[in-house]
Amino acid sequence: MGPPAELFRPLYREGEVLRLLDQRLLPAREVWLTLSKPPEIALAIRDMAVRGAPAIGVAAAYGAAFSMRSGATTPPAERFETARHLLAATRPTAVNLFAALDRMARRFAEIAASDSGEIERALVAEADAIAAEDIEACRRIGRYGAELLAPDSLVMTHCNAGALATAGYGTALGVIRGAVEAGKSIRVLACETRPYLQGARLTAWELARDRIPVEIITDSMGGHFLSGGEVRAVVVGADRIAANGDTANKIGTYSLAVLAKENGVPFYVAAPTTTVDLQCPDGSRIPIEERAGAEVLSFGGHAIGPDGVSARYAAFDVTPARYITSIVTDRGICRPPFLESLARAMASAGKNHRRPD
Amino acid sequence: MGPPAELFRPLYREGEVLRLLDQRLLPAREVWLTLSKPPEIALAIRDMAVRGAPAIGVAAAYGAAFSMRSGATTPPAERFETARHLLAATRPTAVNLFAALDRMARRFAEIAASDSGEIERALVAEADAIAAEDIEACRRIGRYGAELLAPDSLVMTHCNAGALATAGYGTALGVIRGAVEAGKSIRVLACETRPYLQGARLTAWELARDRIPVEIITDSMGGHFLSGGEVRAVVVGADRIAANGDTANKIGTYSLAVLAKENGVPFYVAAPTTTVDLQCPDGSRIPIEERAGAEVLSFGGHAIGPDGVSARYAAFDVTPARYITSIVTDRGICRPPFLESLARAMASAGKNHRRPD
Repeated sequence: MGPPAELFRPLYREGEVLRLLDQRLLPAREVWLTLSKPPEIALAIRDMAVRGAPAIGVAAAYGAAFSMRSGATTPPAERFETARHLLAATRPTAVNLFAALDRMARRFAEIAASDSGEIERALVAEADAIAAEDIEACRRIGRYGAELLAPDSLVMTHCNAGALATAGYGTALGVIRGAVEAGKSIRVLACETRPYLQGARLTAWELARDRIPVEIITDSMGGHFLSGGEVRAVVVGADRIAANGDTANKIGTYSLAVLAKENGVPFYVAAPTTTVDLQCPDGSRIPIEERAGAEVLSFGGHAIGPDGVSARYAAFDVTPARYITSIVTDRGICRPPFLESLARAMASAGKNHRRPD
Repeated sequence: MGPPAELFRPLYREGEVLRLLDQRLLPAREVWLTLSKPPEIALAIRDMAVRGAPAIGVAAAYGAAFSMRSGATTPPAERFETARHLLAATRPTAVNLFAALDRMARRFAEIAASDSGEIERALVAEADAIAAEDIEACRRIGRYGAELLAPDSLVMTHCNAGALATAGYGTALGVIRGAVEAGKSIRVLACETRPYLQGARLTAWELARDRIPVEIITDSMGGHFLSGGEVRAVVVGADRIAANGDTANKIGTYSLAVLAKENGVPFYVAAPTTTVDLQCPDGSRIPIEERAGAEVLSFGGHAIGPDGVSARYAAFDVTPARYITSIVTDRGICRPPFLESLARAMASAGKNHRRPD
């Protein structure tokens, strides 16, 4: 058991600005962006300089918090709504984005009559709270989830549900960090996660930084290694969890869940309660982002397909609840039937964590 | 229904030499290699200038046929055996390689007493026959398999089991070509097939060349599209089929087979009888090639993972027979139980197609 690593925060407020690590350039280069206006933050979300459902929520909260800074002749409510709509239009699947913007809107409504400076101070404090609560939620997920992993085991994960996907510590990688901090010896098999390679670039980078052993495989190898008996658990994050437990997450998650079940390997989803959307009855209602096929057709700046051939790019898939062993939240481990266990967890999560309709 | 496209041959003898399209450079560049010595051909197989089980078999046959050309002071049998061992050591999984070398060895044994020139002529004729029979086998696979595809349908395939993987026409893509020639309207969803991207680079290239509609997806999207109801069939090739129907093929095939079954989509394997290995009782006995993890970690000269993090690279996986709907061979369509249907097909395949022990 190593010492707990220092908490790494991929985005944080520094005075008047948001400092944000550009995840598109990792692991080759560590470039920090300095953002101070809502459109800059919206662009960073849309173009995936920041990604991961909880991290997107935190970034959007700061985007809304900075909305008083332009258009001084425009009424504050209009300035706020303009920023909110801009930020809400960036990406459709991660519910944390909308949950954070709704929470910021409630805070704005409470202080709408104040002057711009006072509104900004209140909104920045709210965004700071969202970030701090996210880190705390991840730590709780880690403590709850740690017990699910065997003391000496190989764990598979997909995409990056780590510190880089949150305000810090991570969800799926939070569970792994929690197990390591509890003295368990965990090795990780990271699916590379085409087309953006979040697994190879981000998960491997942050686990190596924490000296947690990690090896990379292509996404196509997931089934082979799950059938080989070596992998003891799969842990992934989530972009949105419906009331019945159906879970939207990075494309490829559904395949791993089916293959895990087929091979008797437990499949865990780790996410804060801000990712649970009780308004959404099941996975068929989760909007799935379709990005440009062209993003599939290049790899490290090289075209990979022949001229004139196109690609399809579903960025997320939905894993039906029946393939999920447990959902690890900051309010405890939810087990099937999820309709009940998720509702219970959400009821205990307090007003700020619930999404109004 | 378009006119049948002209047969494309990715490797063929031209006088004294083997002309071979370097598949590592497609689709960006079309470079033909001229090979005339066994070590050159062994290298082309090992380094994947040529790949695909039937194509590897044909290349190895020419490698053996050219074995008389060096070491004039060495007895012919020794020259032949040296070449044979060199060629056999290139790649372990595709049984066609060994089947072709065994057939060449039988031909050599028949004429071992002749002079070098006569031996070479006989061996070259045998390699020519292997190539011609492979094309004929693919055409038969195409005719048999065509009936399995619905008249207007989207078909998923993995890796490249096309003209480029054979002496010409292809196995899985042979089935698709057969259906198109029979007047069916087939659209193809090609999994890109990391790490070498045979799907994005080769399958898309040769289908576009034949004007068969094709779109590329990442391997991680296979399950999502299989669950969506659009895909009517999966057709893949094989590197080795055990007596009970268990099938080794490019890594990722097993995952697609499980996901196809889970979603009620038929899963077809298309391969010539030279790919069936009746000496191998089941998939657990098929040697699976493990290649260097470094091959997973770079693309086009760019490192994709952080320094110091390694990868694992299983190049093939085994799909248990229970996930396979039918195996389309040049001797007809084999259905479960495969132990019987494959044995029947092999018994009808004639002496040249059987592998001696």
